Amino acid sequence: MNLLQQIEAIVGANGLLQGEAVTARPNLSMGLGSCPAQAIVRPANTAELAEVMKLCHQHRQPVVAMGGLTGLVSGTACEPEHLGISLERMRNIEAIDEIAGTMTVEAGVVLETAQQAAKQHGWQLAMDWGARGSAQIGGALATNAGGNSVVRYGMAREQVLGIEAVLADGTVVTSLNEMLKNNTGYDLKQLFIGSEGTLGIITRAVLRLRPACDAVQTAVIAVDNFDHVGQILRQLGSSLEGKLSAFEVMWSSFTRLLIDDTGRHQKLFDDPHPYAILVESAGVDQAREAAHFEAVLGELLEQQLASDILIAQSSQQAAQIWAMRDDIEGMVHALFPPAAFDVSLPIRDMERYIQAVERRLTELQPQGRLLAFGHLGDSNIHLVFGPTENKPEVEEVVYSELVPFNGAISAEHGIGLDKRVYLHHSRSEIEIALMKSIKQAIDPHNLLNPDKIFL
Amino acid sequence: MNLLQQIEAIVGANGLLQGEAVTARPNLSMGLGSCPAQAIVRPANTAELAEVMKLCHQHRQPVVAMGGLTGLVSGTACEPEHLGISLERMRNIEAIDEIAGTMTVEAGVVLETAQQAAKQHGWQLAMDWGARGSAQIGGALATNAGGNSVVRYGMAREQVLGIEAVLADGTVVTSLNEMLKNNTGYDLKQLFIGSEGTLGIITRAVLRLRPACDAVQTAVIAVDNFDHVGQILRQLGSSLEGKLSAFEVMWSSFTRLLIDDTGRHQKLFDDPHPYAILVESAGVDQAREAAHFEAVLGELLEQQLASDILIAQSSQQAAQIWAMRDDIEGMVHALFPPAAFDVSLPIRDMERYIQAVERRLTELQPQGRLLAFGHLGDSNIHLVFGPTENKPEVEEVVYSELVPFNGAISAEHGIGLDKRVYLHHSRSEIEIALMKSIKQAIDPHNLLNPDKIFL
Repeated sequence: MNLLQQIEAIVGANGLLQGEAVTARPNLSMGLGSCPAQAIVRPANTAELAEVMKLCHQHRQPVVAMGGLTGLVSGTACEPEHLGISLERMRNIEAIDEIAGTMTVEAGVVLETAQQAAKQHGWQLAMDWGARGSAQIGGALATNAGGNSVVRYGMAREQVLGIEAVLADGTVVTSLNEMLKNNTGYDLKQLFIGSEGTLGIITRAVLRLRPACDAVQTAVIAVDNFDHVGQILRQLGSSLEGKLSAFEVMWSSFTRLLIDDTGRHQKLFDDPHPYAILVESAGVDQAREAAHFEAVLGELLEQQLASDILIAQSSQQAAQIWAMRDDIEGMVHALFPPAAFDVSLPIRDMERYIQAVERRLTELQPQGRLLAFGHLGDSNIHLVFGPTENKPEVEEVVYSELVPFNGAISAEHGIGLDKRVYLHHSRSEIEIALMKSIKQAIDPHNLLNPDKIFL
Repeated sequence: MNLLQQIEAIVGANGLLQGEAVTARPNLSMGLGSCPAQAIVRPANTAELAEVMKLCHQHRQPVVAMGGLTGLVSGTACEPEHLGISLERMRNIEAIDEIAGTMTVEAGVVLETAQQAAKQHGWQLAMDWGARGSAQIGGALATNAGGNSVVRYGMAREQVLGIEAVLADGTVVTSLNEMLKNNTGYDLKQLFIGSEGTLGIITRAVLRLRPACDAVQTAVIAVDNFDHVGQILRQLGSSLEGKLSAFEVMWSSFTRLLIDDTGRHQKLFDDPHPYAILVESAGVDQAREAAHFEAVLGELLEQQLASDILIAQSSQQAAQIWAMRDDIEGMVHALFPPAAFDVSLPIRDMERYIQAVERRLTELQPQGRLLAFGHLGDSNIHLVFGPTENKPEVEEVVYSELVPFNGAISAEHGIGLDKRVYLHHSRSEIEIALMKSIKQAIDPHNLLNPDKIFL
């Protein structure tokens, strides 16, 4: 029997996709491309995956673990010699501890399914982003995903208590800790979180849930001075007592395009302002939350940190504001073809950074337009530039200008294939060498998601 | 020149302790023992330490990095062939970013000094425990320390954004990220946090600060049923909207000894109750906080989850309650010689676990007494048993009974030397093998804190 026949004997016919069943699947996110892998294995459980990996190890067969294919850096792109691994059949929610607030899931569970299960038990899973309907927990953890609630709860890494993963040789590392505290030797789960499938394939996880907070308040704050943006972040972080759940800044380059130029969204304020901050707080009592939110925002006006404030009067109005913040389609359409970026750097340096990027990009492509917006509370900004004539040139500007500020070329999307050549702008040779020595120690034959992150 | 002379040429006479200057120092915490190391090196900065480690690497000289010697598992104990490394001269607070809430420190900074610096800038460092006046940041991070604010802010690991560490061969890994989000390859800081100095010596760190919360409310809740303890934890986690800052349970075995039998502390309630829960909330507005706290606790009485409640009417009264919770001296004196434990397990299993331990210990030493208390909000309980005739026998009972519950033999203290022989009760052979392969990859000559955690 050849390798695929041996694998089929383990996972069954339903567990092995070949031919058109593979090519009909995309290779990248947004449904792009056609998967070129020689086959896709769909194990039904951890034991099957372990057996498959033992065979792959014997045959030195490289594999690419895939989640919901919603990543944005080609982190699950395959080559023809690869075998894809999809955990889409492993989608059991195995346990929910209602008292401690923990949930044990298989890696193929779709994010939205896990969110709903948490909600049904009176908790929330503090991981959320646009692709919630497709993204899988395994991929979310493998990429240490960010999203909408990082300013309050941290990234995916901070929602994990325990992990089970299969190593390149088929060893199953079961480290399904359920406790907030466990100081018994190295914290092995950290190896698998954020390493983009290069050190192990996550098969199960214990997630930490957070108390549900459904009393949401939403507002937009108009600000005329970037120093005030930082001061408002600091002040709301304190006065909202940990309930600050979103702090999204839209530079006027962003609002001008999406409100004034394209007319896609309603005007927020009578006068133009250089910055608009979308803020949210979330508590448990609607009336108390509304009063507190209004009082705290009123102080910003009194202190002249804010120039104007629009408090959403309904969840519909809040949704409209978010729709503008999330209007990727509007940006892509207006700036086609666009180049989009996900970078982080200290807030104190953001204005200088954006100005430096804008200056160099304007020299490069005078007709181009640069938009800035993002999760400022997490030090994370997104830049969109377009129309883009020469994407690598634009990328080099955006990433190299981060170096003086010790910024990150990826705040939340990861490195995958797309940002690999720029990794040196954010990590030193010594750091990259240390990453490689870990990779070498744990996956010496380079079988797991080869060539991703670094070469 | 021999090795010590070469080291002295790097760090100067003031940087190298020998003879009585070494033996006058303790080998363990609580001032116990006399340090047997051949010398203690005190570098003035990272570059000096890197040069020293290059020499040690050439000479295959094992080293033990020491912080404030406040650990409780002999994690910094030396042998005569070891060289001690103390970062006590590296105690600069290098930067505080008041807007973003970050602080960059050298590893020798004493915890309390760092706390005060954060406070002066209107922030708090969310790491705190009894030994704050001696513990150093480097040791706190190397051991992933826990302490008093874990239920709200997480362990030391969650207070770190970036780290610099020196590897066994003198390589300096500078990974001083300041952002909440940075997904550029492996998160190398996780290697050094909680690995007890076995993978690198932490020299600097960027700490994440939290908004100051000085409006503290304290109460003790009397509970008659353990199921209610869990329900109260869940309910307060929700109704206090993230402001729950302490949830410490004292079993009646604990309060009976320290209140009734020894008379060291004042009675909390007229009637005896099986459980007393010390709870704290912390916000920013004293009046609003007091009203919210009282309302939320009142609901517990109405719902008959709580049998009685004592709200501290002053900070003096709160301090008295905490003095009882922290009365290690009272326990040690009454149960001398005691055996003390720091374990974690799911809350749902705690009563069954304690009963199993008590049953077996009573068979072993019928005159002994078992006290239970601890950070229940973190799934962490402390057990004290005494008088202890045969400590290893007692340890074996306490640790082996954790196995059916997937508990941890160390919740926050680490493994060090003391718990090494019990590690297998909490971690599988596969997990320990993976730890060893990481150790082998990063410190192949076993020079950094050898023989700690595992053999």
